[in-house]
Amino acid sequence: MSALRMQMISPRTVRFLSRGRSEFLAGSNGAQRSGGGPSVRALTSPPLSYSITRRSLSSLSGTRRGLPKEKMSENGVVPRAKVLTIDTMNPTVKNVEYAVRGPIVARAVELERELSEGMKKPFVEVIKANIGDAHAMGQQPITFFRQVLALCSYPELLNDSAFPEDAKSRAYYILQSCGGNSMGSYSPSQGIDSVREDVAHYIERRDGGVPCDPDNIYLTTGASDGIMTMLKLLVCGEGANRTGVMISIPQYPLYSATLAELGAVQINYYLNEDKCWSLDISELQRALDEARHYCNPRALCIINPGNPTGQVQSRQCIEDVIQFAEKERLFLLADEVYQDNVYADGCQFHSFKKVLYEMGPEYSNTVELASFHSTSKCYMGECGFRGGYMEIINMDDDVKAQLTKLVSVRLCAPVPGQALMDLVVNPPQPGEPSYNSFIKERTATLSALAEKAKLTEEILNTVQGIHCNPVQGAMYSFPRITIPEKAIKEATDNGQLPDMFYCMKMLEETGICLVPGSGFGQKDGTYHFRMTILPPIDKLRILLSKVKEFHQKFTWQYS
Amino acid sequence: MSALRMQMISPRTVRFLSRGRSEFLAGSNGAQRSGGGPSVRALTSPPLSYSITRRSLSSLSGTRRGLPKEKMSENGVVPRAKVLTIDTMNPTVKNVEYAVRGPIVARAVELERELSEGMKKPFVEVIKANIGDAHAMGQQPITFFRQVLALCSYPELLNDSAFPEDAKSRAYYILQSCGGNSMGSYSPSQGIDSVREDVAHYIERRDGGVPCDPDNIYLTTGASDGIMTMLKLLVCGEGANRTGVMISIPQYPLYSATLAELGAVQINYYLNEDKCWSLDISELQRALDEARHYCNPRALCIINPGNPTGQVQSRQCIEDVIQFAEKERLFLLADEVYQDNVYADGCQFHSFKKVLYEMGPEYSNTVELASFHSTSKCYMGECGFRGGYMEIINMDDDVKAQLTKLVSVRLCAPVPGQALMDLVVNPPQPGEPSYNSFIKERTATLSALAEKAKLTEEILNTVQGIHCNPVQGAMYSFPRITIPEKAIKEATDNGQLPDMFYCMKMLEETGICLVPGSGFGQKDGTYHFRMTILPPIDKLRILLSKVKEFHQKFTWQYS
Repeated sequence: MSALRMQMISPRTVRFLSRGRSEFLAGSNGAQRSGGGPSVRALTSPPLSYSITRRSLSSLSGTRRGLPKEKMSENGVVPRAKVLTIDTMNPTVKNVEYAVRGPIVARAVELERELSEGMKKPFVEVIKANIGDAHAMGQQPITFFRQVLALCSYPELLNDSAFPEDAKSRAYYILQSCGGNSMGSYSPSQGIDSVREDVAHYIERRDGGVPCDPDNIYLTTGASDGIMTMLKLLVCGEGANRTGVMISIPQYPLYSATLAELGAVQINYYLNEDKCWSLDISELQRALDEARHYCNPRALCIINPGNPTGQVQSRQCIEDVIQFAEKERLFLLADEVYQDNVYADGCQFHSFKKVLYEMGPEYSNTVELASFHSTSKCYMGECGFRGGYMEIINMDDDVKAQLTKLVSVRLCAPVPGQALMDLVVNPPQPGEPSYNSFIKERTATLSALAEKAKLTEEILNTVQGIHCNPVQGAMYSFPRITIPEKAIKEATDNGQLPDMFYCMKMLEETGICLVPGSGFGQKDGTYHFRMTILPPIDKLRILLSKVKEFHQKFTWQYS
Repeated sequence: MSALRMQMISPRTVRFLSRGRSEFLAGSNGAQRSGGGPSVRALTSPPLSYSITRRSLSSLSGTRRGLPKEKMSENGVVPRAKVLTIDTMNPTVKNVEYAVRGPIVARAVELERELSEGMKKPFVEVIKANIGDAHAMGQQPITFFRQVLALCSYPELLNDSAFPEDAKSRAYYILQSCGGNSMGSYSPSQGIDSVREDVAHYIERRDGGVPCDPDNIYLTTGASDGIMTMLKLLVCGEGANRTGVMISIPQYPLYSATLAELGAVQINYYLNEDKCWSLDISELQRALDEARHYCNPRALCIINPGNPTGQVQSRQCIEDVIQFAEKERLFLLADEVYQDNVYADGCQFHSFKKVLYEMGPEYSNTVELASFHSTSKCYMGECGFRGGYMEIINMDDDVKAQLTKLVSVRLCAPVPGQALMDLVVNPPQPGEPSYNSFIKERTATLSALAEKAKLTEEILNTVQGIHCNPVQGAMYSFPRITIPEKAIKEATDNGQLPDMFYCMKMLEETGICLVPGSGFGQKDGTYHFRMTILPPIDKLRILLSKVKEFHQKFTWQYS
């Protein structure tokens, strides 16, 4: 856990870094003493807030509760202490880190502003390759999806002859399932009935006929929402009985952030970088056996295709994982949001659900599984709509009732996102007017991604000191970088993690925004960065050659 | 708290009630032994789940961890115990209750299905007056809003001459603020910059020029999301130091549900029904003083206009509350989602923010306030889009950085909801092509609501044994009902709360779905129900006359 549970960035630094900005975030640490420009260096004074503990309060007999004693006598003035300070806020929230929108992104936003204000930089544009946000990188939405969403938003358009008939009938079908035929009404908390049915049919088709019960489908606000909800259900116990959850390292930091917030124990298992980030059962066993000494391991999270590591799990490996979960009594969480993003020859997406059922009733009747999908990735890239679903297998009925109750408090997932999810699982069919253009658009996007995955791997591997595993799937490369000893020392002397130092320097010199590997976790002494493969191919070429150039210069400079 | 923290409905009951349905929910209790039809009565067998405690596990030396001993010897078969059971799940989740979608709604959905299958009932239609879902009750969306959303969804329509120019320019403006000019890209976690700026301008106009900093605005997934996030920040401490949060009784059960989930202490203060549900400072003081013996009260929640009680707070009262919060060091949470829903003569909406600033720097520089708004209520009623914002005043900067970090883990609020929020705070202006139709539509909706508020009060007050305070604002009436002793006894003998008994009977006999007062909290020995005023006026008349008839019959039957 060492690489992930780093000391928090000082909130004052964060404030400064993000002043007037919204993209901030105290994610991985290190920026506070980075070489990240003058704005970062100025921050040395101590935090303004002062501690108000209950202990100090209870000693204040006769004084107004809540005012720290030492503040009451200054010049006869009684400044009012804040009710909510860094010392009196929820401690688990303080432990949360989310590197994908961390301090390096805050600095990128700052640099964009400085550029727009005419400040001179060694680059003309900031390229944000930190987040899997396809549309922001210029990917076009699927026409059919957006036509239907427009029709659902403004049903007057159902009379517009410019819209294809299949888009209209799909919009009509979705609106029929909405209260008052409006996307403006709440849906049932579990999601619109007909959408859940369509999801179930999609899963059955995807999994070669393995049955799916719509009652096991929950529509969510993106996959993140579903994952958080499931983890929330799983947490109980105190001390050595506290729920432990196994996550891969490297991982997507939603997992570590959520576990921190819930006060659950994060159990790291390491993916095998030498074998293309594959998952070894022996490593799962090691991690589990160790964890049993200090917590109660109850769940195992898998991301397939992998984020940030881009590997695609083999069918055999999935079978082994399921066997392991059965043997060790672990609830499985399968994050499968990149299920259409498979590029490498010989790789194929296998859903945990399908493999589970193919393993026979000993497994399919027992192993508890939640799998997650989303509208945000694959060929759609519709992140902003926050659509998603989860499927629950073998969940105890009483717990399921509790889950349904829990999601009802937030009323429902956004209905436009539910509508979009419906289109994703039920796209135009052969013979329908929009079928050809849909297939063409989808193929174009997926082919371009495959090309970019290959290009990224190839170019990065031409650089001495960078090793990039094949990007078999998903949307990221996670190359290993060699950082010279001198650079490591300079970073460490400045209290900064070496890969953050590296990425921050790259940002300042090239305008390229990457996320340091420490934000995802990595083996001690190894360094990486995550870079999306999403920019248009021409821009990606420029980006990769800039990375190459930077790395060579950096290596030379610190050798 | 007694009326709210009731024993949970048995999860098996819940499962039964909601079989194959998605609207279920274990909200307030009582249904399991209600007179609510044959399907409800059949449930007397004990729960199937069996307890797996860590204690029992640790005694199983040599056996596979996690299998309860007593299950291992049965017929030589080893059934695999679930990892996640009602006994091993997150205990705080079990404490959550949410009556608005509780068992009575599950039964209503069941009845709808039975009707559609041709079963004979004493009514032809179920009328769901349980939830503030305007579009589901037939309210039409604002044309301009939906035009802009359609344009944003499918920007090809920007070339369509059928759309008014102001809708196009608004869509263009929103898309310009989206990454890649697409609603499909993530926004900054705090919300789209330009939308936050528009929200700030709206607040300034609304509050007569009181300044508003866009940096204090967070766009949220409905108001619920913002309220939950703020409460999450506030929770800390253990035992008698645990954070206590004051909420009105009656309350909107989002508050009690969230506090239960967070393990915070709910502090009830009672609204004064005899004075039209007004808020007495002396009652706040009583509740606070008592609570200080068992927790650390840190926040005070106000809903204005009131839900479920429909009162509109006077300016003086708001001033008193702010003074109280200042004196007692409480963080204020002002739920102002009904700010446009004010109907009664002499009533006016005053925002907490405005009053706070008018009270001068002693208050405006110190009292911490979060206020919440939403696209779901007012004249828009766009619940399904899950749009909302919160404004944070006087929040400690370090805490604010933590808040920004926390919201980043969920990436962003749904972008269509953000776009809609932008339209709400920045509607068509005089002189723009859509202005007149916008005003006409808005006025029609608000006038109809005012008429329905009055009609509801008037008709209910003609019924002996029902007393309804004026519905000054919001979307609900919360009348007090006299339940005869014999009915109370019958309900109690069946282990059911009397108002649940009453509402379940009403549902079975009339098809009208209301929420019992116990789901919101009420003074011991008093009984109420919440009924929305949203059905179209003709249907509302029918509904009210059915309620009248039912109440008379019920009273006669049990006298």
